Amino acid sequence: MPHISLNSAEPGIRGLLQFRPETGRPLSELAEVLLRGPSTLTRGERELIAAYVSGLNDCQYCSASHSATAAAQLPGGMALVDEVRADASHAAVSSKLKSLLAIAAAVQRGGLHVTDEHIARARAAGATDLEIHDTVLTAAAFCMMNRYVDGLATIAPQDPAVYAAGAQHLVKEGYLPPPAT
Amino acid sequence: MPHISLNSAEPGIRGLLQFRPETGRPLSELAEVLLRGPSTLTRGERELIAAYVSGLNDCQYCSASHSATAAAQLPGGMALVDEVRADASHAAVSSKLKSLLAIAAAVQRGGLHVTDEHIARARAAGATDLEIHDTVLTAAAFCMMNRYVDGLATIAPQDPAVYAAGAQHLVKEGYLPPPAT
Repeated sequence: MPHISLNSAEPGIRGLLQFRPETGRPLSELAEVLLRGPSTLTRGERELIAAYVSGLNDCQYCSASHSATAAAQLPGGMALVDEVRADASHAAVSSKLKSLLAIAAAVQRGGLHVTDEHIARARAAGATDLEIHDTVLTAAAFCMMNRYVDGLATIAPQDPAVYAAGAQHLVKEGYLPPPAT
Repeated sequence: MPHISLNSAEPGIRGLLQFRPETGRPLSELAEVLLRGPSTLTRGERELIAAYVSGLNDCQYCSASHSATAAAQLPGGMALVDEVRADASHAAVSSKLKSLLAIAAAVQRGGLHVTDEHIARARAAGATDLEIHDTVLTAAAFCMMNRYVDGLATIAPQDPAVYAAGAQHLVKEGYLPPPAT
């Protein structure tokens, strides 16, 4: 049961965005730019970074939601997502994505854990400054989202079908709220 | 030296907001709503939460910047900020603010560290649902900002006068970028 009285029965971050639209709007815009805006990383790769960090933070709602959204947009589907979440360093992803996932894991521990070696390895694998920037900010943003969702004890549905349906909606409609009518 | 090539010599988050305005805008809007928007917590109290969490995350730039901005807006000034950062549980702040700072410290460790007891204590001290919500989100947001600033190894000036001048600007103008001309 959530720590505060929300104005809907929506689970996870959805209930929070609806409770406080003044903060919900910039949070939704940030997610839209990072996970779906123009980028040289695919939407599937970016959702994978979000799912991976959310797993490291033990956030059940966010990890299930972004795993489903990554799986829906990656050729390897949920098998690949599970592989990355279990052991990113040996998963069947490019060396560039592996190096970015290593940066994301360092950010999850704390910003000062990102080393020159992390960055050099990402550059050697072909990562651009913008890709490194967006990986750091995406990992940092999910350290916020995960704490927001769990710090207020929001509901995380158990049924994977809920997240799969949510993923289909996100893939089609994105993170921005529908325009006010 | 920052891990990536920025397009300015601006320190801390300022260089990052300028490097990537697409993400800079929602980040600035979030800070503006949380730290300066309508609230039953004063601007000084909210900056204190930001400074406290940034200190717990060892983020030199953010802790110095928000400490200065809190000090500029709190009757107790920097002495009170230093007192809170050294030992929030014995600082000369209201029992409500103490209970919110305890929630913020729990969020910094991770969302699942916020307990029913934290919430009950805050409620007993008079905190509203919205104050609890905003405290959790502010603490979570600074877990993002701190990781973003340090994960990219941005510059943190040593001179306290830089932060004091920045605080005067923030108190007057806020976090939103000036309108494009």
